[in-house]
Amino acid sequence: MLIPVILSGGAGTRLWPVSREGRPKPFMKLADGESLLLKTYLRAAHVGYGGELVTVTNRDYFFMSRDELARARLCDGHQGVFLLEPVGRNTAPAVAMAALYVANKHGRDAKLLVLAADHLIKNEQSFDKAVTDAVGLAAQDYLVTFGVVPDSPETGFGYIEAGQAIGGGRAVKGFVEKPSEDKAREYLLDDDFLWNSGMFCFKAGVFLDELSAHAPEVLKACEACWSEMREKSSLTDTMFEMPAETFNAVPDISVDYAVMERSARVAVVPVDIGWSDIGSWSAIRDMAEPDDENNRAIGEVIFVDSINSYVQSEDRLVAAVGIDNLLIIDTSDALLVANADRAQDVKQVVARLKAQNHGALKLHPTVTRPWGTYTVLEEGQRFKIKRIEVKPGASLSLQMHHHRSEHWIVVSGMAKVINGNQEIFVATNESTYIPAGHKHRLENPGIMDLVMIEVQIGEYLGEDDIVRFLDIYGRCQ
Amino acid sequence: MLIPVILSGGAGTRLWPVSREGRPKPFMKLADGESLLLKTYLRAAHVGYGGELVTVTNRDYFFMSRDELARARLCDGHQGVFLLEPVGRNTAPAVAMAALYVANKHGRDAKLLVLAADHLIKNEQSFDKAVTDAVGLAAQDYLVTFGVVPDSPETGFGYIEAGQAIGGGRAVKGFVEKPSEDKAREYLLDDDFLWNSGMFCFKAGVFLDELSAHAPEVLKACEACWSEMREKSSLTDTMFEMPAETFNAVPDISVDYAVMERSARVAVVPVDIGWSDIGSWSAIRDMAEPDDENNRAIGEVIFVDSINSYVQSEDRLVAAVGIDNLLIIDTSDALLVANADRAQDVKQVVARLKAQNHGALKLHPTVTRPWGTYTVLEEGQRFKIKRIEVKPGASLSLQMHHHRSEHWIVVSGMAKVINGNQEIFVATNESTYIPAGHKHRLENPGIMDLVMIEVQIGEYLGEDDIVRFLDIYGRCQ
Repeated sequence: MLIPVILSGGAGTRLWPVSREGRPKPFMKLADGESLLLKTYLRAAHVGYGGELVTVTNRDYFFMSRDELARARLCDGHQGVFLLEPVGRNTAPAVAMAALYVANKHGRDAKLLVLAADHLIKNEQSFDKAVTDAVGLAAQDYLVTFGVVPDSPETGFGYIEAGQAIGGGRAVKGFVEKPSEDKAREYLLDDDFLWNSGMFCFKAGVFLDELSAHAPEVLKACEACWSEMREKSSLTDTMFEMPAETFNAVPDISVDYAVMERSARVAVVPVDIGWSDIGSWSAIRDMAEPDDENNRAIGEVIFVDSINSYVQSEDRLVAAVGIDNLLIIDTSDALLVANADRAQDVKQVVARLKAQNHGALKLHPTVTRPWGTYTVLEEGQRFKIKRIEVKPGASLSLQMHHHRSEHWIVVSGMAKVINGNQEIFVATNESTYIPAGHKHRLENPGIMDLVMIEVQIGEYLGEDDIVRFLDIYGRCQ
Repeated sequence: MLIPVILSGGAGTRLWPVSREGRPKPFMKLADGESLLLKTYLRAAHVGYGGELVTVTNRDYFFMSRDELARARLCDGHQGVFLLEPVGRNTAPAVAMAALYVANKHGRDAKLLVLAADHLIKNEQSFDKAVTDAVGLAAQDYLVTFGVVPDSPETGFGYIEAGQAIGGGRAVKGFVEKPSEDKAREYLLDDDFLWNSGMFCFKAGVFLDELSAHAPEVLKACEACWSEMREKSSLTDTMFEMPAETFNAVPDISVDYAVMERSARVAVVPVDIGWSDIGSWSAIRDMAEPDDENNRAIGEVIFVDSINSYVQSEDRLVAAVGIDNLLIIDTSDALLVANADRAQDVKQVVARLKAQNHGALKLHPTVTRPWGTYTVLEEGQRFKIKRIEVKPGASLSLQMHHHRSEHWIVVSGMAKVINGNQEIFVATNESTYIPAGHKHRLENPGIMDLVMIEVQIGEYLGEDDIVRFLDIYGRCQ
């Protein structure tokens, strides 16, 4: 039994403005239209043989994560299980909660394959082979890490120093902190040094034992969470919400510090699998095909006498004149222009936005909700226009606004609308009007997406002018 | 009698993406919200003392030009007169038509002050003084040019070589083509060399006589236009449309080549008036105040370790990381990122767009119509959303669409709507529905702007699905 456990917590501040709090790095779509999380689900389903996929993520990302799992269209028998954190507490508590779940449901000998939700692996075949090797070592009670064979003198990663061969892998001599550039160049020529990829494989019981030995306070705090959670849930549930107060008290520590660097039972499987942590826009750039001037473009771009540059545009025309070595990332509400050598410093923009509590830090113009999405198309004086997309079978809460009226025009699909005391169907090319103070509810009763244009009119148009009476997603409080 | 004549014909391709065919350089708004044309009207009204302002422009820009004149809110007594060209034929025919109009209406001794619609003059007082000098020379039957005292070794302008002093100016020894950089550096140190600004002052009759002497074929062709035009109009009209076929036959030649460089009666008034032809984005940049890192920003911009750069953004957040010497011009549907040393080459982008017959060459998302504006907010599958603004008292044509229905929602003001056989009023926060095949008309009967959201739904949503039945702006054919 091998249960893939996907840790989905990366903020990806270096990938602003595409990665933001409201839709962070795991949900970022690559040029092929697939998100990193979706790719991770596909990869995990391919190697897992327990039929279960466990995701540990913040509860804010539950519905979005479930949507990505649905988009992966895995064949029957793959059951998604979600362990939801109220706050981030680094990787040790996340892995510990997953290990407690797996040990309790499937037994202490069931193995976990811990994967990050925001990495890319190009060579899936080599990855499958490496997982097989890791499972073999895990069966011998090793805590197995995956060590990526370096192809550049990377100073942004920790390294693993490998020792003698054991089974399909090697023993671990030690872990090395992010090195200097000189050291990184040395390591590049030395077969014993590997990048610490943050992927692991081990039996649930072995991990919990080692955690108990080396970081007992973490295990104890996680067990308290587990007990409290179990009081409200059954092991057959697919969604577990960690109790906020108890989980808040769990130490913030990485699995490397808590266990891997301290345990004597660690092994490493060296891998050459086309791995990237997609750490910055430079990594995204490198995935696109360069032209003769070493320019790369996603979207409609005109290069005039420009070289070595990357432009990514969602829906606008971009013209570049006489530029060199730039990254230009264009989204509908924010634009980034950066020297490619300074890709790491994009996080400074996010820090600045954070200091200003700026809206562009958190939300995209398109906001994802459990029932679908809405996109603000324009805000003017006393009016706001949204495009609302509701998934088949989904419905918004029964709600009321004090300060705004809403005009709804269905442009695609069919809407079922409760408007005051009436229940009506609104078909494509029909409209309805919701006066301020009227209780209303929007539902998509059909089997295709409902697309609707909403024109709000009123003195105050903030999202907080909403009274929810009934909500299938538990958002009434 | 001094009649300002404003030549409004510049395409301003170096100022793409803000300047485009649909709204070219004279209509470009500066940071203070005023267009170059509006500033020219204010300047002209200040010095003119005939009560008339003559604009020579393409007929496509008539309504937009008239709007700018209205925005200038000139005090009573200033009458706008528009001479409309079907095609551009350079400056000699434009000035000749204006001279024919002025000579016929106000007599051959009335003076013209010829100004470009897309230049900027910072020092209005010095300009007023220079005009007084020029008028004095024009009274002595000189063709007066304004020669700008150079403050840089400019290779993009022609130069005027000044001779002995006469009246408030100097005689002209000759005109010099755009010089080499070495020559331009020499001229900068020599008081006799001045930039040819393209502004002039002369009596209508003197100009026509000199045109007859030096370019009789131009005068003859223009006189043919004038006669044909007069058959359909009265001298008290304020809008004269040049006959297309006859005007097409007028030679394409500049006023410098046709008259100034050939005439013996040319004088120059040297001026130091803070003049700029706003020839590229560098000129726009120079008008903004630099910060400590020599960055300049219009709009919301975050600079991280960036220097010497200019960012202009309409409504999006722009972040710049580690950049130097860039121009970043952000509009709602197109973005320009250019090395500041290559500002002249922006015209190459326009040339490329022209070769592709690209939409971003011609129109802004906001399109100006005689009755107001419309802005496309979103185009989706089978739907399109527009914000429509109708000026007080204005109305759209009585029209019909075969392939689309329209939902209209009034968000501000009052609409009078003809919908099939009905005539109704639609107030703020009310809506109406125009089915495909229904004749309809939209009017703003009020005294404040009407703002409306239109949601179009149908198989085909092109602007050419329109049958016009009645149009007060003469667009039925």
